[in-house]
Amino acid sequence: MRGFDASEFQSRTERAQQRMAQAGLSALLLTTEPEIRYFTGYLTRFWESPTRPWYLIVPATGKPIAVIPSIGAALMATTWIEDIRTWSAPDLTDDGVSLLADALCEACPMDAVIGLPDGHETHVRMPLANLHRLQDRLGARRLGGDDGILRALRMVKSTDEITKIETACAIGGRAFHRVPEIAGEGVALDEVFRRFQMLCLEEGADWVPYLAGGAEQGGYADVISPASPSALVPGDVLMLDTGLVWDGYFCDYDRNWSVGQAAPQVRDAHATLVEASDAAFEIARPGATAADLFNVMNAILSRNSEDTGAGRLGHGLGMSLTEWPSLIPTDHTVLEPGMVLTLEPGIAVGDKILVHEENIVITEGAPRFISARTGPELPQI
Amino acid sequence: MRGFDASEFQSRTERAQQRMAQAGLSALLLTTEPEIRYFTGYLTRFWESPTRPWYLIVPATGKPIAVIPSIGAALMATTWIEDIRTWSAPDLTDDGVSLLADALCEACPMDAVIGLPDGHETHVRMPLANLHRLQDRLGARRLGGDDGILRALRMVKSTDEITKIETACAIGGRAFHRVPEIAGEGVALDEVFRRFQMLCLEEGADWVPYLAGGAEQGGYADVISPASPSALVPGDVLMLDTGLVWDGYFCDYDRNWSVGQAAPQVRDAHATLVEASDAAFEIARPGATAADLFNVMNAILSRNSEDTGAGRLGHGLGMSLTEWPSLIPTDHTVLEPGMVLTLEPGIAVGDKILVHEENIVITEGAPRFISARTGPELPQI
Repeated sequence: MRGFDASEFQSRTERAQQRMAQAGLSALLLTTEPEIRYFTGYLTRFWESPTRPWYLIVPATGKPIAVIPSIGAALMATTWIEDIRTWSAPDLTDDGVSLLADALCEACPMDAVIGLPDGHETHVRMPLANLHRLQDRLGARRLGGDDGILRALRMVKSTDEITKIETACAIGGRAFHRVPEIAGEGVALDEVFRRFQMLCLEEGADWVPYLAGGAEQGGYADVISPASPSALVPGDVLMLDTGLVWDGYFCDYDRNWSVGQAAPQVRDAHATLVEASDAAFEIARPGATAADLFNVMNAILSRNSEDTGAGRLGHGLGMSLTEWPSLIPTDHTVLEPGMVLTLEPGIAVGDKILVHEENIVITEGAPRFISARTGPELPQI
Repeated sequence: MRGFDASEFQSRTERAQQRMAQAGLSALLLTTEPEIRYFTGYLTRFWESPTRPWYLIVPATGKPIAVIPSIGAALMATTWIEDIRTWSAPDLTDDGVSLLADALCEACPMDAVIGLPDGHETHVRMPLANLHRLQDRLGARRLGGDDGILRALRMVKSTDEITKIETACAIGGRAFHRVPEIAGEGVALDEVFRRFQMLCLEEGADWVPYLAGGAEQGGYADVISPASPSALVPGDVLMLDTGLVWDGYFCDYDRNWSVGQAAPQVRDAHATLVEASDAAFEIARPGATAADLFNVMNAILSRNSEDTGAGRLGHGLGMSLTEWPSLIPTDHTVLEPGMVLTLEPGIAVGDKILVHEENIVITEGAPRFISARTGPELPQI
C-alpha cells in the first residue's frame, strides 16, 4: 500500500507534542523535505528545485499547519492537513516570511520558544536572511532548537514504514541479482552505472536518488567518485551501492563482484567483511548501542592490521539515505525495536578498500535482515 | 569533454574575489553542493546523504580552501584545490566547527566580514547550532551575507557550461522522441514515469534527479504530484517534465502528448502555449528583463481569460534544476549573453492546466533554442 493511514500522522504528531511539552516548546518549525513529509505525507520530487521554501508548523495541540507556495496547495490538500496557507512564490519582497510569522504568532504565546531542528544531520532550508527577518517579526517569541525531537521520533520506524523500506530493499535485491546481465569484462563502468539504474527502475523503484560504487584492480580507491568510462578488466572488484526509493523510503546497501578470478587476499577481505556484518547482526538487539555494533565489527576488521582507518561502519536509514544513529565509537544511542540500520564494514586491501553493506531491522528479539544476506564468497562475473 | 580546465575555476574564483573586494568581504563561506562545485568541480552524488556538512572558503586572494569530511579527501584531491583540511565525520562533539573556525581565522583579518549566501533560493547547509558555535569561535569576525555574489556569477554561464546543458537537453530530446515506445492507451502513468527515466538513462543521462508530469482528461490538475497508477485513456493529455543531469548540469523542459484525439480547446491551448514561448524567445536579447519575458507571455496567455493564475513562467537553469532569475513581473534582472533560461508558460483549460517548457541561451544577438523547438501541433500517441 502506498501512503499511510491518517492515524500514522496523528500518532507522529501526538508523540511530537508530548515531547514538545516536556521540552517547553510551543511549536516546531520544519523546513526540510523529510521533516515536512514525516508529519504530512507530502511526497513530491519538486524539492529538487531550490527556489521555494516550504514551512510546516507543529503546534502544541492539533494538526500541523502548512505555510507553503501556492504551487503545492493542490497536493498538500490531498494529505490529512487542513490548515494550508499559501503565497505566490517566489516573491522577491516577502517570500512567505510575513505569512509564516503571522501563523507562528497565532499558534504560540508571547513568551514561546519555537523549536527548529538544529543538531547533527539537520539544516534549516530557508534563506538565512529570511530566518533573521522571521526572528525580528516574532517579537519576544524565540527561535530555539528542537531538543532532538525529530531525531528521536524518526529514528524508530513504524511497521508501515519498515514495510516500505523492505519493499525498496527487495527491489534493490532483484536489481543486484541481475547485475551479471549488464556488467562484465569490457563494459565501461559508467555504462554499468547507467544500466544498473535502469534495472532498479525496471524492478520497481520510483526513482534512484543515489548510486555510488567503483571498480579497480583488487578493490577501489574511493566510494563517492562518479563512474569512470574505463572498461572492466579481469581482477577488478566491482561494487555498486544504491539508495533507491519506493514510496518515499530508501534502501541503502551494496554488493561486490570480482571480474574474473579474485586474488586470495581479496576473497579473504570479502569474507572478513561478511564476518563483521554478521557479528554486528548477532548483537543488534534492544539494549545494545550503536557503539557496540561498531566495536564488534572493528575488532574483526582490525584483526590483521593496526589501523584500518575505519570511519562510520553503518547508520540509520529511512526517509533519507542516511539517518541517525551513526555506528561510531562515540555514538551511545541505545537500540530499540523499529530502528532500521545499515551495517557497513570497510577494509583495506593494499592501497584499495572493499566495503560491504546490509540493511537490518531491530526487533524485540533477534534482528532481521531486510537486504538478502550475503554469504562470505565473493561472486564472480 | 567532462569536467573543466582549471582555468575555468581560476576565472570563477577571480571574478568572485573582485566582487568580494567591492563588497568588503574577506572571504566567502559556502556550504551547498552547487556553491562548492562551482569553485572546485567537486562532483559526487554523496550529497544525497544529509549526515555530513561540507565547507569551502573562498579567500580574498588565492585558491579556495576545502574543509571537508575525510571521506571526501581523495575525490577533492583530484580537483584543482590544494588546501584540503579534513576531519573524521561525523564527530558528535565537534563536527568540523573548530577546523573551519581556525581556517577562517587564518584566512581573514580580525575585523573581517565573511559572506554566506543568504538571499533568495539559498540556504546554509549546516546544523544551525553549529552556525552559532562557529560565530562564537570567530571573535570579532562577523558572518554576513554574500551580497548576491554567487547569484550574479552563476547566472551567467561560460561556453563550457552551456555545452554541458546542451548535452543534457539533447539527451532529453532523444528520450522525449521515444515516448511513443513506452506510453499509450492502457499503460499506467507510474509505469510511463519509470520507463521514461530508463529512456533518459539509455540515451546518456548520468542520473535523473527530477521527473514530474501528469495525465488526465484534457489536461492535468497539478504538475508536482507523484505519478498515479491509473492507465492512460483516450482524451488524456500526458505531460513529462524532466530535469536530467549530464556531468553535473541539468536540462529542464517538458513535452505534451494527446492520448488519441485531442479536443479542439486542448489543441488550441497547446498552440497558445507555443505562441507564448515563441514570443518570449523573440525578445530574449541582452537588455530585455526577466519581467519583459513574463509580460509578453502573459499577454498571450491571458488573451482569452481575465486571470490565468500565472505564477512563474520560467527561470534560470544550470547546476541546479531551477536558478535565478525568475520570469515574474517583479524580477527586473537584465538579460546578458550566457544566461540559460527556461520559458515555461502555463494555461488553464476548464479545471485543468497545460504547461509547456523550452530551454534557451541568451547570446549577443538572437537567442538560441537548446531544447528542440516544439511546433504548435499537439502530438498524438
